[in-house]
Amino acid sequence: MAAKVYASPKHVLICLVEKSIEFETVQVDLLKGKNRSTEFLKLQPFGELPVVQDGDFTLFESRAIIRYYAEKYKHQGTELLGKNIEERGLIVQWIEVIFHPLLGLPQNEKAIAESEAKLIKVLDVYEERLSRSRYLAGEEFSLADLSHIPFTHLLVTKVGKEQLIRERKHVSAWWDAISSRPSWRKVSQL
Amino acid sequence: MAAKVYASPKHVLICLVEKSIEFETVQVDLLKGKNRSTEFLKLQPFGELPVVQDGDFTLFESRAIIRYYAEKYKHQGTELLGKNIEERGLIVQWIEVIFHPLLGLPQNEKAIAESEAKLIKVLDVYEERLSRSRYLAGEEFSLADLSHIPFTHLLVTKVGKEQLIRERKHVSAWWDAISSRPSWRKVSQL
Repeated sequence: MAAKVYASPKHVLICLVEKSIEFETVQVDLLKGKNRSTEFLKLQPFGELPVVQDGDFTLFESRAIIRYYAEKYKHQGTELLGKNIEERGLIVQWIEVIFHPLLGLPQNEKAIAESEAKLIKVLDVYEERLSRSRYLAGEEFSLADLSHIPFTHLLVTKVGKEQLIRERKHVSAWWDAISSRPSWRKVSQL
Repeated sequence: MAAKVYASPKHVLICLVEKSIEFETVQVDLLKGKNRSTEFLKLQPFGELPVVQDGDFTLFESRAIIRYYAEKYKHQGTELLGKNIEERGLIVQWIEVIFHPLLGLPQNEKAIAESEAKLIKVLDVYEERLSRSRYLAGEEFSLADLSHIPFTHLLVTKVGKEQLIRERKHVSAWWDAISSRPSWRKVSQL
């Protein structure tokens, strides 16, 4: 049965594509308050997005959703859960770490400078990590990497900070590897 | 080998006790900036807490840590990972949801009132959920429940909001069940 995905962030869709899971997307008009409708609150009692329905089973919170599908379809499509318990630990770790500094897209110059300084420090840690393994949790692409794609894409395009990626050899190679995946090409065009 | 736990939040320790894992705790003096020392940054490159060392393996981010130990010691102590893929999905979901509203402990009256109004709505969702299953992810205690213990304890004690728990029948019974666990009695005295 196709997954029914309500207003999903792109990393959830990347995960579904990597796992070769069919899905249909459902738009939820936040401006019209559709996320506060009785019908929607039955699916997601907090009125938040995303939500997926897998048959009768409903799940929210994107980290829960990607893990659920990666586990349920472990042997279909790309293996995304790591090859042992240590790697699975590192996957959760790097999903939690995911670099937030620019998420707020601050408006004033001082805040932008501070935010960029933080991001530089964080990317230095990524550079060191990625000098030791090809992907964040080990030698294979995982949920940790795919969770970074949409935001890094934003950083490189909308925020105009590709240079921060390119001046770090291993981060740059990692970004090339993850951003050239067919799953991202497909999802980025949705 | 005993887990070496650096300045851990209590839900990580509850997890270790539930899994019958021996551990030693290491204090990291943030006021003296010990988290920015070269030695510490080798363990946790962002200079943040908590971190655990399991032999040669180092892991940070509390959600990663509790999951790692629950998985590594699946058949030791309390089973905390749910009995099927759906429950495991719900466990991650409820760990992510964990009610934040009062975490900031706002100081002014308006902010306190707004914060409490939000918390009431959130607790109503918990009440509905817990009317359908004994614990958050199903009929058994899991990582989702233990992740809620320290903050709910704070809410009931320091924040003085026990009434919000007590006036909700199922939340109240759930709180009695999770707060009376020997693991919490032990950890709360550390």
